[in-house]
Amino acid sequence: MSTITKETSISNTLNMAKKSIKSHKRPSGNDPMRFFRNHHYSPGELARLRQIVRDSGTSLILPYDQFIEHDNRHVDPNPEASNPDYICNLADAGGYNGVAIHYGLAKRYWTKLAGNVPLVLKLNGKTSFPDQSRPLSVHTSHVEDAVRMGAAAVGYTMYYGSPRQTEDLPQLAAVRKECDKYGMPLIIWAYPRGEGVEGKGGKECSYAIESATRMATEMGASVIKANLPVATSEDFFENKSVPEYYRKVEKELQGMDAKAQKWERAKRVVEAAQGIPVLFSGGSQVGDSDLMDNAKACVDAGCFGFIFGRNMWKREWDKSLEITKKFQKMLDDSAK
Amino acid sequence: MSTITKETSISNTLNMAKKSIKSHKRPSGNDPMRFFRNHHYSPGELARLRQIVRDSGTSLILPYDQFIEHDNRHVDPNPEASNPDYICNLADAGGYNGVAIHYGLAKRYWTKLAGNVPLVLKLNGKTSFPDQSRPLSVHTSHVEDAVRMGAAAVGYTMYYGSPRQTEDLPQLAAVRKECDKYGMPLIIWAYPRGEGVEGKGGKECSYAIESATRMATEMGASVIKANLPVATSEDFFENKSVPEYYRKVEKELQGMDAKAQKWERAKRVVEAAQGIPVLFSGGSQVGDSDLMDNAKACVDAGCFGFIFGRNMWKREWDKSLEITKKFQKMLDDSAK
Amino acid sequence: MSTITKETSISNTLNMAKKSIKSHKRPSGNDPMRFFRNHHYSPGELARLRQIVRDSGTSLILPYDQFIEHDNRHVDPNPEASNPDYICNLADAGGYNGVAIHYGLAKRYWTKLAGNVPLVLKLNGKTSFPDQSRPLSVHTSHVEDAVRMGAAAVGYTMYYGSPRQTEDLPQLAAVRKECDKYGMPLIIWAYPRGEGVEGKGGKECSYAIESATRMATEMGASVIKANLPVATSEDFFENKSVPEYYRKVEKELQGMDAKAQKWERAKRVVEAAQGIPVLFSGGSQVGDSDLMDNAKACVDAGCFGFIFGRNMWKREWDKSLEITKKFQKMLDDSAK
Amino acid sequence: MSTITKETSISNTLNMAKKSIKSHKRPSGNDPMRFFRNHHYSPGELARLRQIVRDSGTSLILPYDQFIEHDNRHVDPNPEASNPDYICNLADAGGYNGVAIHYGLAKRYWTKLAGNVPLVLKLNGKTSFPDQSRPLSVHTSHVEDAVRMGAAAVGYTMYYGSPRQTEDLPQLAAVRKECDKYGMPLIIWAYPRGEGVEGKGGKECSYAIESATRMATEMGASVIKANLPVATSEDFFENKSVPEYYRKVEKELQGMDAKAQKWERAKRVVEAAQGIPVLFSGGSQVGDSDLMDNAKACVDAGCFGFIFGRNMWKREWDKSLEITKKFQKMLDDSAK
Amino acid sequence: MSTITKETSISNTLNMAKKSIKSHKRPSGNDPMRFFRNHHYSPGELARLRQIVRDSGTSLILPYDQFIEHDNRHVDPNPEASNPDYICNLADAGGYNGVAIHYGLAKRYWTKLAGNVPLVLKLNGKTSFPDQSRPLSVHTSHVEDAVRMGAAAVGYTMYYGSPRQTEDLPQLAAVRKECDKYGMPLIIWAYPRGEGVEGKGGKECSYAIESATRMATEMGASVIKANLPVATSEDFFENKSVPEYYRKVEKELQGMDAKAQKWERAKRVVEAAQGIPVLFSGGSQVGDSDLMDNAKACVDAGCFGFIFGRNMWKREWDKSLEITKKFQKMLDDSAK
Repeated sequence: MSTITKETSISNTLNMAKKSIKSHKRPSGNDPMRFFRNHHYSPGELARLRQIVRDSGTSLILPYDQFIEHDNRHVDPNPEASNPDYICNLADAGGYNGVAIHYGLAKRYWTKLAGNVPLVLKLNGKTSFPDQSRPLSVHTSHVEDAVRMGAAAVGYTMYYGSPRQTEDLPQLAAVRKECDKYGMPLIIWAYPRGEGVEGKGGKECSYAIESATRMATEMGASVIKANLPVATSEDFFENKSVPEYYRKVEKELQGMDAKAQKWERAKRVVEAAQGIPVLFSGGSQVGDSDLMDNAKACVDAGCFGFIFGRNMWKREWDKSLEITKKFQKMLDDSAK
Repeated sequence: MSTITKETSISNTLNMAKKSIKSHKRPSGNDPMRFFRNHHYSPGELARLRQIVRDSGTSLILPYDQFIEHDNRHVDPNPEASNPDYICNLADAGGYNGVAIHYGLAKRYWTKLAGNVPLVLKLNGKTSFPDQSRPLSVHTSHVEDAVRMGAAAVGYTMYYGSPRQTEDLPQLAAVRKECDKYGMPLIIWAYPRGEGVEGKGGKECSYAIESATRMATEMGASVIKANLPVATSEDFFENKSVPEYYRKVEKELQGMDAKAQKWERAKRVVEAAQGIPVLFSGGSQVGDSDLMDNAKACVDAGCFGFIFGRNMWKREWDKSLEITKKFQKMLDDSAK
Repeated sequence: MSTITKETSISNTLNMAKKSIKSHKRPSGNDPMRFFRNHHYSPGELARLRQIVRDSGTSLILPYDQFIEHDNRHVDPNPEASNPDYICNLADAGGYNGVAIHYGLAKRYWTKLAGNVPLVLKLNGKTSFPDQSRPLSVHTSHVEDAVRMGAAAVGYTMYYGSPRQTEDLPQLAAVRKECDKYGMPLIIWAYPRGEGVEGKGGKECSYAIESATRMATEMGASVIKANLPVATSEDFFENKSVPEYYRKVEKELQGMDAKAQKWERAKRVVEAAQGIPVLFSGGSQVGDSDLMDNAKACVDAGCFGFIFGRNMWKREWDKSLEITKKFQKMLDDSAK
Repeated sequence: MSTITKETSISNTLNMAKKSIKSHKRPSGNDPMRFFRNHHYSPGELARLRQIVRDSGTSLILPYDQFIEHDNRHVDPNPEASNPDYICNLADAGGYNGVAIHYGLAKRYWTKLAGNVPLVLKLNGKTSFPDQSRPLSVHTSHVEDAVRMGAAAVGYTMYYGSPRQTEDLPQLAAVRKECDKYGMPLIIWAYPRGEGVEGKGGKECSYAIESATRMATEMGASVIKANLPVATSEDFFENKSVPEYYRKVEKELQGMDAKAQKWERAKRVVEAAQGIPVLFSGGSQVGDSDLMDNAKACVDAGCFGFIFGRNMWKREWDKSLEITKKFQKMLDDSAK
Repeated sequence: MSTITKETSISNTLNMAKKSIKSHKRPSGNDPMRFFRNHHYSPGELARLRQIVRDSGTSLILPYDQFIEHDNRHVDPNPEASNPDYICNLADAGGYNGVAIHYGLAKRYWTKLAGNVPLVLKLNGKTSFPDQSRPLSVHTSHVEDAVRMGAAAVGYTMYYGSPRQTEDLPQLAAVRKECDKYGMPLIIWAYPRGEGVEGKGGKECSYAIESATRMATEMGASVIKANLPVATSEDFFENKSVPEYYRKVEKELQGMDAKAQKWERAKRVVEAAQGIPVLFSGGSQVGDSDLMDNAKACVDAGCFGFIFGRNMWKREWDKSLEITKKFQKMLDDSAK
């Protein structure tokens, strides 16, 4: 340091920061955090998100909140899978990048994994028994619980368009604020729901899902969970309460062949998220061939990964692990 | 310590932790906390729960919140039993492992026991006067009260499936969070209730009770209080709003003989709790023979114990003590 | 679930938890959290500690707080190593299980790693300029900062035996309480220091270091950082202010050959920790052969791992990575 | 100081403050804060407002909350403009005095501007899906978020006259209180809305907009955003639920020629604000000639500036910048 | 959006973020925030720092805390300059990028500027009357005051190496934590001081100033204020309490010619800051030629700017403005 010549050292000083950034690239050339580099994630968000990201930069999460959202019916067909220990072990053995569960399961069962699988603490829920036309998903735990448990992220279900959005949005804003305070990543389940949505094409159409996805970005999501949209009924084209633009788009989409349509719908959701990473959910159980086709469309559309539940754990142990590997390969291949 | 030889000491060092666990076992071989060993109870939860656990690892609790939940009608048939002092003394004389009461009784009457019987402070309640189709049980005291009183646990009534679950679940989550903060055990009264439940088989069927029990586990219960389910009416088998799985199960159950059916229903509840200990309640007063049969089914199904009220204190003093002993023997025998 | 026979199901119910624990063992037979299984670590502690644990259950941490503890002199001999980016990249490239730094470096430099290397946030420090006879290490950041940054653990320097322990111990107790609140692991730098220690054999003898290590266990450390003790001067044997026991032990130790003595000293520190995992530090720069011998003695004594700084980064980049690999192999071999 | 003569120095001292204030006038003679001099703005309000004020003392803000208020339909016709980065860059390149967005966009996109364009954080919103007859705009973020982000102001939508004003006004009062605490300027979107407003001439008439504007002043707005009123339908003149005065005024206004009417309507809104600066919004897209005419009327009426969204960014990039320049010139000319 | 072909759109989706970053570069090619791009400044830090940054990316701040640090002596030689209004007007007329003052002046005088000049609120101070061997600078106001006033940054004096560092460092850590909470930039006055420093070469030598500068980086400074070091007395070379490395460096420096030495000393301070921007102070009044030489050396060494007080305002008004322009030109030229 004592023999530096003037010519070299000024530029050295000025360029020091840049060089160190450059040298930061991993030897493999892979940047596992590529989905998070350009949108000002906070230090805590980045450090925690890294835990749920594969080396290929993608993610496969195992959700297990169905015993709240539906009810104990899911003891069928595999009663073993109703045991949270079974699910935690499955997540561990399968190399999942996280398990998304509510607080009671996290405290009593997930803890036994001692950190082998990251925790996504699902913060709100509702049951299947009451009327569903004005849905609101409420707290079963809080961000502070997630912090104390060492969770890698929290999950929040936003019912976009519900008449109770006047309760939902402030509740979400409060969760997001706590997340910012603690550097906790916020995964928003972006779900269009309720009587208003039903009157404008329903919860599964591109119009509703794209709008819900965009809303999640506006609310400050770190990651967005969305469903792959499907075709509307024909009366959508004439529904005057739907914007003309979306009626036109839906018509064009339904004119495509099945594969192109899936990919285009997936891509539009990814674009609606405007760079915030999208995890696609599997929804209710479907045939394996459909499941793989849907997943491939989502990967090709640039999604961050999957959050697949019933389609994974409603199988025998070995079959679950087998299909898990397939999705992981699909995700890892997408990063090459 | 100074004369250790190298060969033995490395493994000694590494095995030190294991040995200290082994030497920790009680001479009798009994582990009264066996129900709580495998689900990560906190230090405070364990220390407090030990107070309501018999040496056989089971528990018999005396609940006395009926003068809130119903009304002053319970002055009949034994007016003495309307005196909280009488109940507290009964709990003491009978060797109950806890008495479950609201704050006013705890402060004014239970305190006279000076700790001879542990306190389970019931935190919420409702009266019988308003309409019950959208039930919500609200705070009559708080976890901090229980801490200050030196309670061994708190009790919370969750009305699973009620339209007001959007208020109930956050209220329960807040109670649970306070319990975690103070190391206070949380006993959830897991009760399916409300118009949604009535439309799907009612509050006493296996479908509803198993789902409520599972929900209590998901919400973070330390112990769950549940009712023993009973058979539905026949129209349940054709009720399309009930999952096909539960219609099938109910049909199978109703095909069994009475004893097997009770045991199977009890066992399914215990399994729905997924390892969280279950206390069965007695419900409304039934004949002694039925009561013993129900209790035996629950014990054989692996329950943690009983929380029996009206069936105990709605008798003369001596009869109460007599039947109390029978249940205690049944519980202690189950641990052998 | 509907066809269970009575004989099997009761024991099934009771044994359900145990089985799921058994099946939890990883296929490799390795339990990376073996050091933490038997001492009631909280869920958050376990989940966070897992991040700094190698699959072999050991740990190698890179500390970089020397520019505070000493001063800017460490720009020599490798000026590049005075750049925190260089150190962070070294930790990443070397596969370190954590980097131990103060807040400013964590916020401005470590964050660029985006979670690729876990953070151990060092919470307190002091500079080399004032008089050192009554040392106290004070806050440069707080547990809440560590939580917000997504740190895997915090580090705290306890100056055991310092005249200012009346400020040090309550400060540590407050840190530990915050750690419990947030589930944050607490690594205590257990350092005997100050004029009192100097009068009883000095900061490097077994007497002082074992006592400081035990103190860290008593204060609630999750992990303990200790130095490998060295021989005292001869006047120690006659120092009446030292307990007779330790004068005898020191004499016996000095009678052993160099290798046995190192191992015995290391083992005594590990035993003083009473099952709380011990990380040995490297101290000031020593020759490579001595460094490897010391490390081997510590590993054979059952330590959890190393926290080596100047001996690692005060080399050229390639040499640093080379010796890093050696220590990692030594640690991984110890777990076989 | 030691040679001051008594006669001169006392008056000097007394006049010193005044003179220094006088000398404070900028060489150009311009006082950019002229709109804020006479109404006791707090130090923090002034310092922050200065950031959104042009040297001419006026302001041009770019709002971009339409993807919440409406939905994802605004991806049409310029898909690039659905990218928040595009909008932020447009605000920067166009020299806007602020960009009004919700929290998610502020955190992830606006931050990349690194302060080049001031932030107006929009605190509340609602979606287009549910019924709109009883509107309430609820929190998507809070004043504390705005403080932490370094925002220059916050925006709040008040639905004047809505049946849910009993929730709206206290919510606004709480926001205003926080603004006072932190010295944060509060821009109120003064919007008459809801079934009550519809029955009295609708949301676009002078009666409703003037009343809403006055309400914003009464609630403590730092700046008010209002729409330029338009003519009512003819049945307004006979609507007995409208005060006679406003029926008379409306009649007079509709008797004027288009230009005079616009100016008069704008002036009445500015007067209703009673000195609190008014930003006029552009509303839905209109033809360029109309847009310029409206803007000129507002400027001539003494408005503080414009907050124009869809009319700006629903164009190609170059066209957006071109019309931006026109409005800035119009505003700057008004100050001469 | 509906006519995208598959080949182009996937990569489009994936590259969307990158492109938007690229297009963000300002037309002029200038990045005024270049000093802050690579060290994870928070959104609030960036937005506020932008206010004190010239378009050339540099900064010139006017400090006016000398009436606290010294005493009322500074009424001499220009009594007008003892009037805070005079100083505020000078900052405004001279186009300073900030004025650094204590709370009373901010509240009573700076506010009159209505935001025309950004505020750097100096949070701590001490007077010249007590003994200075164990210095500690204590709060005269707090971060919350700065937030409420709309300050662009806060200033904190750290007395590196003082015996009272055990009070100083936690006080600074608490200030830094508040700064993080509110997104407030923290400018650390990095001053080596106290008896420990005096014994090791004194407060003005490169050893002490570089170490203090590094400490400011470690403590989380957003910007560092440092003095340009000067040569030590000769006995420094033999001072055994100084690290050998620094004795060698000092000898080499003193062997250089005056200009090279200044530049080398400045550059070493900039490097010790490791990329955190350095503002050099002017210190006590020196001749104009020396002042310009010093400033040029600092600029050539890569400093962020200057914070010059007495050398600026201890002149007549016109002379002050004249030399101000010279430094601004020097800074702006450095960015070309």
